[in-house]
Amino acid sequence: MSEQKPLILVTNDDGVTAKGILSLVQAVSAFGDVLVVAPDKPQSGMGHAVTIGQIVRLNEVRFPLDGIRAYSTTGTPVDCVKLAIYRILDGRKPDLLVSGINHGANSSINVIYSGTMSAAVEGAVEGIPSIGFSLLDHSADADFEASGRVVGELVRSALQNGIPKGTCLNVNIPVGRPESIKGIKICRQARGFWEDAFERREDPSGKEYFWLTGAFSNHDRGEDTDEWALEHGYVSVVPVHYDMTAHHAIAVLNSWDINDKIAE
Amino acid sequence: MSEQKPLILVTNDDGVTAKGILSLVQAVSAFGDVLVVAPDKPQSGMGHAVTIGQIVRLNEVRFPLDGIRAYSTTGTPVDCVKLAIYRILDGRKPDLLVSGINHGANSSINVIYSGTMSAAVEGAVEGIPSIGFSLLDHSADADFEASGRVVGELVRSALQNGIPKGTCLNVNIPVGRPESIKGIKICRQARGFWEDAFERREDPSGKEYFWLTGAFSNHDRGEDTDEWALEHGYVSVVPVHYDMTAHHAIAVLNSWDINDKIAE
Repeated sequence: MSEQKPLILVTNDDGVTAKGILSLVQAVSAFGDVLVVAPDKPQSGMGHAVTIGQIVRLNEVRFPLDGIRAYSTTGTPVDCVKLAIYRILDGRKPDLLVSGINHGANSSINVIYSGTMSAAVEGAVEGIPSIGFSLLDHSADADFEASGRVVGELVRSALQNGIPKGTCLNVNIPVGRPESIKGIKICRQARGFWEDAFERREDPSGKEYFWLTGAFSNHDRGEDTDEWALEHGYVSVVPVHYDMTAHHAIAVLNSWDINDKIAE
Repeated sequence: MSEQKPLILVTNDDGVTAKGILSLVQAVSAFGDVLVVAPDKPQSGMGHAVTIGQIVRLNEVRFPLDGIRAYSTTGTPVDCVKLAIYRILDGRKPDLLVSGINHGANSSINVIYSGTMSAAVEGAVEGIPSIGFSLLDHSADADFEASGRVVGELVRSALQNGIPKGTCLNVNIPVGRPESIKGIKICRQARGFWEDAFERREDPSGKEYFWLTGAFSNHDRGEDTDEWALEHGYVSVVPVHYDMTAHHAIAVLNSWDINDKIAE
């Protein structure tokens, strides 16, 4: 038995003390050696932000499970992935990256705002098989039992099959006990958007400030989307890539009458 | 002449006082009424971050060009787009959104880290024809003369043709005088990545901290990429969309042997 156990990097965007990351570590620790590198505070909505023009700190911390090496950082989820690879592991790439389990959905358009998913996308950019997990429950004490089983099944499959190069997985899990989940569906990202609003308030000195609020709405009637799967009691799995080129639009743009003599 | 002039929303990630946004406003003001909503400080590398769990402030500011209505915000570039539409314009969508001109390249993988491009992507999510402009020069006093002409040509074309639905344009401009630019090429995003590093330092109390550094390298030999165009003296235009689904990977994942009886 000289074979090395897989090295599994775990991160999230709710911070190293969130219940979701503890549930994720519990679910993956049977599959390999775990390294946790996560933000020291909530970083929801951080998208693919990286820390430029500011310093980052990295501190070894005690994780509430024996034998787990864990670090917190002052940076974003994407910073955590970069710090893990280029600072802690000195350039060694983990065999698997898992991010989450997020407290709240990251389906549809939320994939671009999500720190959880941006960490997984960064893993894919680095060539690491990467999966982001999110549970459709924002509460701090959400029930991650079903999620833990979904993590186990998908991590087993990913370690066995690999993940298509240049992609990562966006996994969303409906609320409910394990027996209420109907199954796992491979999906595409639904066309859904936020109708935003800003709630205006005044600070104690009378100066105005705003809170971003809004409501998500799904504009997609397709039955092959993540929103459809979740509404019907399934776990959704969307393969996500970082090539943002709208390939179909290249021919349209080539038909534009652009004067490319810039100097005239 | 009762026809309304187009409303053009201008934002960036270098902050409202950057030279690049002044050059952009100068270049677009001939095409319509301009509204500037930009961060009050540099927000480079902010990706698609939105401000959640924190307040945002919005202040009307004096822009250094007559007749330009301008606001600064404490938020990210994506917040600026949301604040413009849902707070300042009360839900009215601008006819065009332009972001930049960024001081520095946003070609290849940089599209996912870039605040400039995330503002343009957010515009596309909102159904607004949107273009992000970046000049391959980081310096604060970069020469934006050629860039201004490129902006003029592409804004004219975009207002005339529209931009394919669900996409925005990522425009990168090589350094040089207008006569040195060979033309404008429609491209795909090159497969290129950052080799990151963290420079370790100690603060005055002896506690360590890090600066993210690194070097970009292009792994793509294709001659249809943004990197190729820029290296050969052309302006690159990449159509970018926000459907991050790796559609080609759906069939691969469907071949996985997943046990979707979660309760067993």
